[in-house]
Amino acid sequence: MQQNHTRRPIAAVVGATSPSQELIPQAEALGTGLVDAGFRIATGGLGGVMEAASRGARGALRWTEGSIIGVLPGLVSTDANPYVDIVIPTGMNYARNTILVAMADVVVAVGGGSGTLSELALAWQHGKPIVALDLGEGWSSRLAGERLDQRRDDLLHPARSAGEAVQLAQRLVGSREGSRGF
Amino acid sequence: MQQNHTRRPIAAVVGATSPSQELIPQAEALGTGLVDAGFRIATGGLGGVMEAASRGARGALRWTEGSIIGVLPGLVSTDANPYVDIVIPTGMNYARNTILVAMADVVVAVGGGSGTLSELALAWQHGKPIVALDLGEGWSSRLAGERLDQRRDDLLHPARSAGEAVQLAQRLVGSREGSRGF
Amino acid sequence: MQQNHTRRPIAAVVGATSPSQELIPQAEALGTGLVDAGFRIATGGLGGVMEAASRGARGALRWTEGSIIGVLPGLVSTDANPYVDIVIPTGMNYARNTILVAMADVVVAVGGGSGTLSELALAWQHGKPIVALDLGEGWSSRLAGERLDQRRDDLLHPARSAGEAVQLAQRLVGSREGSRGF
Amino acid sequence: MQQNHTRRPIAAVVGATSPSQELIPQAEALGTGLVDAGFRIATGGLGGVMEAASRGARGALRWTEGSIIGVLPGLVSTDANPYVDIVIPTGMNYARNTILVAMADVVVAVGGGSGTLSELALAWQHGKPIVALDLGEGWSSRLAGERLDQRRDDLLHPARSAGEAVQLAQRLVGSREGSRGF
Repeated sequence: MQQNHTRRPIAAVVGATSPSQELIPQAEALGTGLVDAGFRIATGGLGGVMEAASRGARGALRWTEGSIIGVLPGLVSTDANPYVDIVIPTGMNYARNTILVAMADVVVAVGGGSGTLSELALAWQHGKPIVALDLGEGWSSRLAGERLDQRRDDLLHPARSAGEAVQLAQRLVGSREGSRGF
Repeated sequence: MQQNHTRRPIAAVVGATSPSQELIPQAEALGTGLVDAGFRIATGGLGGVMEAASRGARGALRWTEGSIIGVLPGLVSTDANPYVDIVIPTGMNYARNTILVAMADVVVAVGGGSGTLSELALAWQHGKPIVALDLGEGWSSRLAGERLDQRRDDLLHPARSAGEAVQLAQRLVGSREGSRGF
Repeated sequence: MQQNHTRRPIAAVVGATSPSQELIPQAEALGTGLVDAGFRIATGGLGGVMEAASRGARGALRWTEGSIIGVLPGLVSTDANPYVDIVIPTGMNYARNTILVAMADVVVAVGGGSGTLSELALAWQHGKPIVALDLGEGWSSRLAGERLDQRRDDLLHPARSAGEAVQLAQRLVGSREGSRGF
Repeated sequence: MQQNHTRRPIAAVVGATSPSQELIPQAEALGTGLVDAGFRIATGGLGGVMEAASRGARGALRWTEGSIIGVLPGLVSTDANPYVDIVIPTGMNYARNTILVAMADVVVAVGGGSGTLSELALAWQHGKPIVALDLGEGWSSRLAGERLDQRRDDLLHPARSAGEAVQLAQRLVGSREGSRGF
């Protein structure tokens, strides 16, 4: 039996439960693109951006069962949207935001309210590379291109489309892979 | 795009980091058997029983990439044993025991010290069906066939072999599946 | 302004929500005795043993406002029993068991079901000294005098009365205080 | 024995480990003022704003032992600054931010980097009233007067001095006290 020399990296997709209708196709394209680029995706498992990204991932050519993780705040696995392959019901309420970020190799934000903002800040604290979709809506747009504080030299990498976000995520994870692997 | 009408159930395999050598092949057979019975497995991601079960799962005929989850106490994903497909570094120390149990559809214990004991007790609190391998070692043997308190009518289902544990896990999850699905 | 050279140690009192009526006065005496011995107490903040110990602590001669901590599983502070001075609503469900144990300098168990059992096991993992009241009921009685696994050389110190438990708790914390302080 | 009809409310003070020197006296005055206004304070237990607020609280006229809580990310209680009365070592790393916010009746931010930003966002999600000191530095200044998303009708109440922050905290908690008590 051989060990896994390379594990599929995980991209956490964070965003609002009730985004504007313009964000939905972008979140969906993001889910598709990330899986086709070799990522597994993880979301908060509920609706809105989380569901759109999961639906998109489900339609990716490289989707396999197990490509889509949903990390729920509650304990009831049936609360997950129907596209999630692996449901992780934490029962920890908002501390699930921390778990979602901790398991990610890269975090991609699409719009988002205070929950997404907490995830961006926690991702920064955890030292995770971050891509922020700047589509004129939500915290991902407002903070795209910024540094959250002085502890890091990089920034929230801005992307103007789902496609650009996928490319950035690949590049960011690839450069880490070279130095320390997943 | 179709939703997942049925998700693969998750069997958490819990047990000691340093079991006796007799338990290792049983843990390995358990990992293989669970995956071949249609389960995804989740462990604490480290050595001993966790590694043996993961190695066994990796060798299952029905293994696919994504069948083996490792939920780490720390934040460093490279601490996971090499057979884990999906590493979840929680950074929450012993609270990871709770997360591991919360994500399981059934919990199977193999020997085990105080960590396993906490997981058995937490699984009982969460209402998860439990299988306890009784191989004369550790908390799984000592508590096999018992109820941990009065809140539940069932017991820690005793199994004398990895094969019997797999059958029990299937039956326990199947009966829940009938009533409420995963 | 002077720093606190010595902090009041915290004794976590763990036990069932619905103990037999015989345990209630013992839990109450334990709460009184621990506070009068110089401890702050922490419980899970709800009813049964938690409430009885808190009520006892509230009546201690050395009670001061702030002597009684209640660490709730939910987010609603009004769920705490009325004797709690400091409510900590965690919103983390059963992971609150871990938090309760992590904040304790010593853990004292009174009877108890699976929740108490998880706390005993987690306390053992955290390296916390443990006193187990052996009054013929619950997990504290069953495990009194035992070691939970080989990682520690000590045991669950058995006590036959609340008074004896208080003395043990003092001795156990005092010996640690000498070596590393609180 | 009487129950506690009114509990002391808890004000969480959040802010950076390494603020500019200008913020230190403000954080100290905030700690003093909050305790003299009837609050218990809770911080992340470490240095910088957390230590300054705790030192200030220690010097308040209405300080009593138990007025100052420190919620640590790690498991080692001696990591707390010397002014903390009650150390809560969580061992949950950044999830301690969530616990700190969950236990607060009001959150007051002083400057702050990404950790503070996560706490502001989490406080918003938890529905906690928030006061943001606007002293030209950190996330508390940048977000003072703003709403983090549409789920709430209020805002991060801006304060230009520690004194004003204390008055706001009192008013915010008092208005809640009227409606539902602590």
